[in-house]
Amino acid sequence: MITLETIQEAHDRIRPYIHRTPVLTNQTINQRSGADIYFKPENFQKIGAFKARGGVNAVLQLTPDDLTNGVTTHSSGNHAQAIAYAARQVGTKAYIVMPRTAPQVKKEAVLGYGAEVIECEPTLEARETGVQEVMTRTGAVMVHPFDDDRVIAGQATAAKELIEDAGQDKPFDILMAPVGGGGLLSGTALATHYLSPTTIVIAGEPEGAADAIQSFQSGRVEKAPYINTIADGLLTTLSERTLGYIRQHVADILTVSDPEITAAMRLVWERMKIIIEPSCAVPLAVVLKHPDRFAGKKVGIILTGGNVDLGKLPFS
Amino acid sequence: MITLETIQEAHDRIRPYIHRTPVLTNQTINQRSGADIYFKPENFQKIGAFKARGGVNAVLQLTPDDLTNGVTTHSSGNHAQAIAYAARQVGTKAYIVMPRTAPQVKKEAVLGYGAEVIECEPTLEARETGVQEVMTRTGAVMVHPFDDDRVIAGQATAAKELIEDAGQDKPFDILMAPVGGGGLLSGTALATHYLSPTTIVIAGEPEGAADAIQSFQSGRVEKAPYINTIADGLLTTLSERTLGYIRQHVADILTVSDPEITAAMRLVWERMKIIIEPSCAVPLAVVLKHPDRFAGKKVGIILTGGNVDLGKLPFS
Repeated sequence: MITLETIQEAHDRIRPYIHRTPVLTNQTINQRSGADIYFKPENFQKIGAFKARGGVNAVLQLTPDDLTNGVTTHSSGNHAQAIAYAARQVGTKAYIVMPRTAPQVKKEAVLGYGAEVIECEPTLEARETGVQEVMTRTGAVMVHPFDDDRVIAGQATAAKELIEDAGQDKPFDILMAPVGGGGLLSGTALATHYLSPTTIVIAGEPEGAADAIQSFQSGRVEKAPYINTIADGLLTTLSERTLGYIRQHVADILTVSDPEITAAMRLVWERMKIIIEPSCAVPLAVVLKHPDRFAGKKVGIILTGGNVDLGKLPFS
Repeated sequence: MITLETIQEAHDRIRPYIHRTPVLTNQTINQRSGADIYFKPENFQKIGAFKARGGVNAVLQLTPDDLTNGVTTHSSGNHAQAIAYAARQVGTKAYIVMPRTAPQVKKEAVLGYGAEVIECEPTLEARETGVQEVMTRTGAVMVHPFDDDRVIAGQATAAKELIEDAGQDKPFDILMAPVGGGGLLSGTALATHYLSPTTIVIAGEPEGAADAIQSFQSGRVEKAPYINTIADGLLTTLSERTLGYIRQHVADILTVSDPEITAAMRLVWERMKIIIEPSCAVPLAVVLKHPDRFAGKKVGIILTGGNVDLGKLPFS
């Protein structure tokens, strides 16, 4: 059970290790969307993504016993760096199982935080087996990327800061986050529920990984009908835990196509001059697609991260 | 003659029309360079570059008579947008002569500010002829991109803000800007001279457009031995005016190669998650190339702009 106090304690706990990212606005994007948008650029966060919040909050709550043998996780992306970063802060070892197809720049970033990288085949089975082997060999504790209340409470602090910094005089009508495994979305929805109860939360999901919208409707954790999207941070399905939070506190999930995601990403790069990854552009793509839902509204958007492979960009 | 008062008045004049950009630092880049670097991200400025400062300061000082027939300039890049933007602020017409080879996105940006774009062949002669024709046809007043004290005083406000925001408790050892026509460098050197007299100013220049370093040494305005660089904002030679300021107030000019520029640009994109154009990466490339000169120093760097063609990036 995540209460307001859980989120406040998480924020106090992680504060020395994370940035309080600013709030950005952009006139052109407001004109184009008709909405009044406040962006929370977590691409400027430690490790380049909001995942530092949840990773640090979880690792800081491990017992000295837990920490003796280090921490482990499997991830091709930002959670890998988050756990490597968090482990370094508490002086323990991190073992990160990464698919051998993960971009070299991400492997290097993980190595740069002093973690050990264990390569595996790029399947969920191989990744889970890899983590099991690490746990057997080293005794390391696993930190799941989203199915963990400590992680979710950490992610909730991004929305908490956005509400504190830009939602006081006039509350947000809508707060938005993308949805993959649902850790950030759960945290965002919980923080909003406690701190800005008149605000509704709407999630964005890629059409090419549209599992959350189905699970949201059916009430059961479902798989996506197919997986094919540029938004490579949002491929995971929900867990029972995150589905529960989302069904309770999220108003709607809307999907967008890859061309819509790429166009929103390009708009942010060109007009805001900041680097965001494709997954991060999903909520703005939703806003641009649905002026009927968002025009005239005060909207907060968590920009989740900026870790892209510059050698493989979707622009031409 | 640009005095401290000239710069202060310019700052007061342009303040309603420009952003006070923040100051950014980055741990990884400090570790890699050994320096303590404070970046002034003018890529977040109106029109995506510092040139908004000088353009607005010049246009705001035109007389009502001057403004009757509009303003004109020739530019393939940021100065075009700056004059178009400034003209719109004062409610006059802008005629921008642009080479037909200029990126479509830049032409669209100029059109987006309500200016008229006149295309010409991509030679300096054709550009100057184009402006002459506009002046004859319309009576518009020309605003030169750098050979103009009003423009230089406007550009000086970037360094003024950087010194005010990050150079008070402990003055900068070094302030840096890239050099093309020398407008920004002159303004930076003058602001530093008046506001932080113990700070020295060092400029960065591409090896493939190395005219300023030669002019700096000889005391005469010289052309580059050859022009071949990715830093397309720095191709211009100095004027007598900017050479004078630079010889008086700049300590040194150091050159870097295109691979060094691209590497510095990539480092900023990957680690700071902000979009800077190649010309903008030149001072950081100088810092990374010369640890002997910069390690252990407090260094301020004006990041000049972030207007890049996303379809033509130098990364692979």
